Amino acid sequence: MSPIETAIKMTLDRWYGSVASLDKLLSVLSDEQLQKETATGKNRGIYLLGHLVAVHDDMLVLLEMGEKQHPELTEPFIKLADKVATELPTVAELRDFWTRQNQLLREKFDQLTPEQWFEKHTAVSAEDFAKQTYRNKLNIIISRTSHLEYHTGQIALLK
Amino acid sequence: MSPIETAIKMTLDRWYGSVASLDKLLSVLSDEQLQKETATGKNRGIYLLGHLVAVHDDMLVLLEMGEKQHPELTEPFIKLADKVATELPTVAELRDFWTRQNQLLREKFDQLTPEQWFEKHTAVSAEDFAKQTYRNKLNIIISRTSHLEYHTGQIALLK
Repeated sequence: MSPIETAIKMTLDRWYGSVASLDKLLSVLSDEQLQKETATGKNRGIYLLGHLVAVHDDMLVLLEMGEKQHPELTEPFIKLADKVATELPTVAELRDFWTRQNQLLREKFDQLTPEQWFEKHTAVSAEDFAKQTYRNKLNIIISRTSHLEYHTGQIALLK
Repeated sequence: MSPIETAIKMTLDRWYGSVASLDKLLSVLSDEQLQKETATGKNRGIYLLGHLVAVHDDMLVLLEMGEKQHPELTEPFIKLADKVATELPTVAELRDFWTRQNQLLREKFDQLTPEQWFEKHTAVSAEDFAKQTYRNKLNIIISRTSHLEYHTGQIALLK
């Protein structure tokens, strides 16, 4: 395995490890627990789960892997704060979206070559990318893993 | 910049970004706020800050960058749960440790060559590393960044 292949494996393993951590946490939290606030007056578990699904849905677009599967989640879980949207999917629906999404993302990630991971993502222009080659697809995985861990730490407080 | 140098920059930039996020959060949280529980019955801010300093202190050893600066923090902030140790540093002391530690880690990180980032860390044997080349120094940064984000998400609930 070349150093570059090793670096890609390290990044993807960390992503999959973070996904597995939240999976495990969701398996011990009931739907009722996920309806609760992570701390007094703060986001509820259901909101954070929906937020993660909505943010990860956008990775498909950023990584040129297709269209969003759940464009209807952007408004209630990214644009709006918790407890603002009048209608939300159920926790059971969000659990299902989360599981299917992780399968889809894994299939898509498996198809990328090392060279493709270092190509630009769709939110950066070709001109900017020429000077900032770190704004590549692999970096989307790095930043989204951090974001996932941040909110997993909060959801863990519902245990 | 070679792909490998780009990959190292991406990983270190994410680490420094996560450190900066917690710096910013600590700058708006008072010592009194950090004495509070992140959620009812859960770890206090002071414990999580001490825990992060203690865990990052061990990075010096794992990365062959010297001895721990604060070995006395391992017991109260890693081995013991919150509210068990009878004596803890003050929040002001922990803030100072955190700031100095980040300066020291940056100086040490700056000294490593790309090749050295892909050398084995000290918690893996030479035999295991021969088969598992991903157990290198850069991977310590990746895993500790995830850990830092997880607890930063919790400390953010004190705002």
